Order: sequence, then C-alpha cells, then structure tokens
Amino acid sequence: MIKVVVDCFGGDNSPGANVSGAVAALNKNSDLYIILTGDEAAIKEQLYGREYPADRLTIIHAPEVIGCDEKPTEVIKTKRNSSMMAAIDCLRTDSAVSGMVSVGSTGALIAAATLRVGRLAGVMRPAFCPILPTMNGGVVGICDSGATVDCTPEMMKQFAVMGSIYLQSAFGVESPRVALLNVGTEAEKGDKLRKETYPLLQAEQSINFTGNMESRDLLSGKYDLVVCDAFSGNVLIKSTEGACLEMLKMLKKNIYSKPIYKLGALLQKKMFSDIKQFMNYQNYGGSVMLGTRKTVVKGHGSSNEKAVEVCIEQVVRAESARMNERISEALTQTT
Amino acid sequence: MIKVVVDCFGGDNSPGANVSGAVAALNKNSDLYIILTGDEAAIKEQLYGREYPADRLTIIHAPEVIGCDEKPTEVIKTKRNSSMMAAIDCLRTDSAVSGMVSVGSTGALIAAATLRVGRLAGVMRPAFCPILPTMNGGVVGICDSGATVDCTPEMMKQFAVMGSIYLQSAFGVESPRVALLNVGTEAEKGDKLRKETYPLLQAEQSINFTGNMESRDLLSGKYDLVVCDAFSGNVLIKSTEGACLEMLKMLKKNIYSKPIYKLGALLQKKMFSDIKQFMNYQNYGGSVMLGTRKTVVKGHGSSNEKAVEVCIEQVVRAESARMNERISEALTQTT
Repeated sequence: MIKVVVDCFGGDNSPGANVSGAVAALNKNSDLYIILTGDEAAIKEQLYGREYPADRLTIIHAPEVIGCDEKPTEVIKTKRNSSMMAAIDCLRTDSAVSGMVSVGSTGALIAAATLRVGRLAGVMRPAFCPILPTMNGGVVGICDSGATVDCTPEMMKQFAVMGSIYLQSAFGVESPRVALLNVGTEAEKGDKLRKETYPLLQAEQSINFTGNMESRDLLSGKYDLVVCDAFSGNVLIKSTEGACLEMLKMLKKNIYSKPIYKLGALLQKKMFSDIKQFMNYQNYGGSVMLGTRKTVVKGHGSSNEKAVEVCIEQVVRAESARMNERISEALTQTT
Repeated sequence: MIKVVVDCFGGDNSPGANVSGAVAALNKNSDLYIILTGDEAAIKEQLYGREYPADRLTIIHAPEVIGCDEKPTEVIKTKRNSSMMAAIDCLRTDSAVSGMVSVGSTGALIAAATLRVGRLAGVMRPAFCPILPTMNGGVVGICDSGATVDCTPEMMKQFAVMGSIYLQSAFGVESPRVALLNVGTEAEKGDKLRKETYPLLQAEQSINFTGNMESRDLLSGKYDLVVCDAFSGNVLIKSTEGACLEMLKMLKKNIYSKPIYKLGALLQKKMFSDIKQFMNYQNYGGSVMLGTRKTVVKGHGSSNEKAVEVCIEQVVRAESARMNERISEALTQTT
C-alpha cells in the first residue's frame, strides 16, 4: 500500500480539484491510500455523494490556509494548523507515508520541505525540479529551480544525479541526457561555478552528461535534464514561461484587432485548442522536491482535478521505482 | 564631425549590408565620417556605382575575417589583421574616433573591447547591454548580459548607472525604471549577490530603482533596464528569444499541418508580417558595450543594411549626448 498526503487547500480550484483528484487517483489505483488535510467540513462537503473506497481515505482536520503572499519562513512557524503544515507533519511523523502533494504556496512548501521533512542520507541540499514540455513532445527537467540559490559545484553534481534518477523513476527516461546550463556550449565557458561544475559532471559515471547548454535550447528536446543553481534555474523557467505567455497574448491582441484576422482564427480554432492543450502544464505533473526524505510534489496553483491526480501518480511512480532509496544509495556512494 | 568605424565583415550579409548601411548613414548625416575596415577590394566593389560623400569615407585594408566559432581570447591575439581587430585598433589609436559597429563574433568583440579598448575612468568592469522590444512598444535593456560573469555588488551598481545613462542618451528615456533581476519581487529575495546589491541600488541617487523583477516580466514594459550579472543576463535573454522562436516554429508547424489552418493563416498574412516586423531586432539597434573608452555597438549577425545603419546611428546619438563623459563623471563621483 502506498500512502500519500494531499494538502486540500491553497490552489485556485481548492478544495474541489484537490478532493476530486484524490478520489480519481484512489479509484484508479487499488494500492493507494490517501490522507487529505484541511478543513474537515469543507472536504466532507466535496466528498459528499461521490463513490470512493472509504477504507483507503482519512481526513486530518487543519482549518488554516496559507496564502501565496505570506512569508514562507514565517508561516512555517506560525501556521502550524494549516492544511499544508499538517501534510508536512504527516510526512515527518508517519513513517508509512511516501509523499505529499500540494498546490499551495511554492515558497512555503519549499521552505517547509527543506526545513521540516529532512534530507535523505548523502544529500547536501534538496533541489526543486519542475518539468516543461519540449517542442518534440518530450519533457525536460530543470534542477535546481527553487531550493538552493547559492550552490557549490558538489551540490550541482548532486542535482544532476538526483534529477537523473527522478526522470528515470517518474518518466521512464532510460538514460537522461544531462546538460549544464551555461552561456555557451564550449567546455571552458561560464562563471566560476560552471567552470568548476563541468569537470565534476564529466567525471560522474552514474549520469549521461552531454555538456553545456544555452538557455535558448531548453525546449528543443535535445536534453532531458538541465542542471543549474536555483537562481539561474528560476530565471530560465520564468523567462521561458513569460515569453510564451507574452507571445500568446500578443497573438490574441492582434487577432482581435481586425475582423478578417478573427475569421482566420475561427478556421484555426481546433489548432489553437491543440496548442493550448500541448502547453498545458496540468498534463505534465508537478514540480518535485528532490533529496528530501519523502517525495514532495508541488502542482501549479491553478491545478484542476486532472492535474492533482497526475501529481498523486507522480508520488506513486517515484515510490514504486524506489526513487528516494536510489538517490540515497547513489549519493552515499559518490560523495 | 563624428567619426565611426564600421567592421565590414563577419555577418551573414557582409560586406554588402555593412557597406550599404554605412553609405545610408553617411547620406543622412552630414556630420558623420565613416572608416570601413576589411578587404579593400571587396568593400570597393560594394561601393561601386553608389552615391556617397567620398570625402567622409576612408577604407582600412584588413583582409582577415574572424569566424563565429573561433575562440575569442585567441583570435584577438592571432587575427590582428582582421576587419574587426583593425576597427578595434582604430578606436585605440585614433583619438578622433567616437566608436565602432560590428556584426561579427560577439565573443571576440566583447573580449577585444574589454582587453584592447580600455575602460573609462571610474569603471570597474565594462558591461554588454542588449535591447529587446517590449509588448507595449517600448524597449528594455539588459545590463550586463555578456561581459562580466563573476560580479560584485559594486559592479552591479555600476551597471545600473551606466545602463541608465545609455537609455537616456541613445533612446531618450528620461528616467529609466531600473529593476534588479531576481527570483521574486520582495526586497529580501535572492542569492548573496542579489541581497548585497539591492541596498546599493536603493541608495544610489542617480538612478530610478524600482525594486526586484522576476524574469517573466522582462517583456511586460514595466521596466526600462534590468540589472544582472552576465551569467543570468545571458540566460534571461537567450531563453526569452528561444521561447519566442520556438513558439513561432510550433505555430508554423501547426498551420502547415492542415489546409484549413493554412487558409486561416492566409487571412492573417498581414498580421503575421506585422508581428514579425515588431519582433525584428533589426529595428531596435545593436547591443552596446558600456564602460569602454569608446562606444562599441554589436549588431546581430544577420543584420541587413537598415540594421547596420541603426547601429551607426546609436554611436552618433551616444556621442551627441556625451554618453561616455557622463558615465565617467557619474562613476568617479559615486564610487
């Protein structure tokens, strides 16, 4: 039995999407047990009238909710009775629990996972690894992209090892092509951190290191995992998302500027819906904290039922593939 | 008289676009003198039959060309007789020359400008400042984006001061809104470098510091200048460009996948051409090296005649606005 905690609040569609996603996952997977955290009455209201295996579902009442604008380091101290912190507590105290899913504040979740869940043996620093779809239909992981801004080369090497095991475990990528985010592809490029990280990645036998990558190639499909410090990883992912959104906005504005353009867009209606579907992160799962003792998956704030279900499945897949044990084995050997 | 050197080789459309751009600039501006560097016969061939003020044009014969794949630090030593190095030499030796324009190898140009042209008094490190169009029709500068990967907070402050003076001088932005590239907008966000830079920018009276900026807001039009180290600046600009191009590629692929989509696109032909025009960096001018004794403008490798002309005008505007004197005055006062 795989036990997963689902934080039921903090998202745009919470608690409805969270509860529905959990129920859908339970109904699909007979080996799954789910603990829901949050306001019990509200959760029960969502469960009312649905069919689900009641013997594999528990609720932990935690009525507070963490807002997205609250300071992460403070809320993890002051909002102990929130749905997110109750889920985190569950990871700490219930050894049978494999991981958790939340669609709430990213900052609070990263801080809580880092400070409260604890690290796997051998792990220097945890890393936050989001996944983006590539233009050829695959995915690319960006590791680290939120947890550790001031990195050492050794930490970067660990990010490469953890990210590779993650892509193998959760996405079935056999030998993930690892690239180091840099300002050019030549081996000698970059700042001090990159110059010192490059030879470490090259020497690391457990990964498939392909060299440096320029940020413009992120979506090209040439790489499965990009290794970076959280600062440049954050810049990379937010500028890529930002540019895609700005492009769509500009297109929309232009289309609406003239009737003939609107007519053209009408003919392309199905195409735009396909593109939207392709770009919809809801289909690709959440971002995962790597290196923490339990698997923590962060879904997008606007996650719907399907997205929450995909996040829960990520925990299940990681657990089934013994991801955390493998990370710990690899890092106690190599460092 | 403003004297500008134009490196005539190294671009996709060289020497034709370079020579034509120079001739166009000369014909428009009676106060301009241009020195062309490169293979004399090839340049003369391009000039043949054109109308231009021959008394305001000189050619310096330098037949070698630097390839884009050549190692910058090596070519500046070995290819002294290249069109680019001849232009750089001109900046060094001819005190009457205000600046230069090149569409050749960015790496070689940054290395040569940094190592051979020398810095303005008060400048710790030069910075490379590209310009991107924003979605509301303005521009945004990214400083530094190529010259100094390992920065101190003091250098970052200088980038803010130099970039502000540049936007005032070359783009007429009265009080450029300066933002620090960071992982969140709150003042306390970021790595060590950002945390130490923030108070320096806040205390700097000569700039209009508006706080931290997330990379997703680069094209929003809310900021005129983004301050960053060259590593994250490079990640920022290349991922933004990369994502925009991948989006267009995906759109094109989709449009060509079905006749009805193609028909729709036919109705939108003018719209797509407008968007292409809007996104065409050729219209916005080149990237400028700030902090070097002379103004060095790098146009895109695929620059056409118009783009080269715009780059030459950038040097003229910077010179007319006494940009370099102002930078030096500001930085000898504040540091």
